[in-house]
Amino acid sequence: MQQAIFYHAGCPVCVTAEQQFAQALDPARYAVEVVHLGQDARRVAEAEGFGVQSVPALVIDGQAFHINFGAPLSALK
Amino acid sequence: MQQAIFYHAGCPVCVTAEQQFAQALDPARYAVEVVHLGQDARRVAEAEGFGVQSVPALVIDGQAFHINFGAPLSALK
Repeated sequence: MQQAIFYHAGCPVCVTAEQQFAQALDPARYAVEVVHLGQDARRVAEAEGFGVQSVPALVIDGQAFHINFGAPLSALK
Repeated sequence: MQQAIFYHAGCPVCVTAEQQFAQALDPARYAVEVVHLGQDARRVAEAEGFGVQSVPALVIDGQAFHINFGAPLSALK
C-alpha cells in the first residue's frame, strides 16, 4: 500500500480536484490522506518538503503533482 | 465505468505523470485512455474542447485537470 497525501485549502478548485481526483485513486493500492493546510498550517513545511508549491497538490510516493491551481503555498503561512 | 483520458506529448514531465498518476486510478471505476498528442495531432482539438491548455492533463468525466506543466497545447499544433 502506497501513501498518497492530498494537500488542499478548501478553495473551489481544491474541492473539485479532491472529489474527482484524490478519490479516483485505486483504494487497493493507495491510502489517501487529505490535509487541509488552511486548518493545519503546521503541515505547510511538510508539504514544502515534498516540493509542493501550490494547492491542490497530490504527493504520491514522495513526488508532488500540482493539479490545476487554487492558491500558492505562501498564502497559507 | 467512467471514461478518463490522459493527454500527453512524451515529455519527461508527461511520462512521470502517466506512470504515477494515470495508472494510479481505480481500474474498477475508470477506463483510462492514453493519447499522445505529438503523435496524433488530430486529437488536439478534442483536448481543447475539454478545456485542456497544456500537457500532461487528465480529463475525468469531461473535466480537465492539468498536472504540473510539460508543454502548452499550442506547441503541438
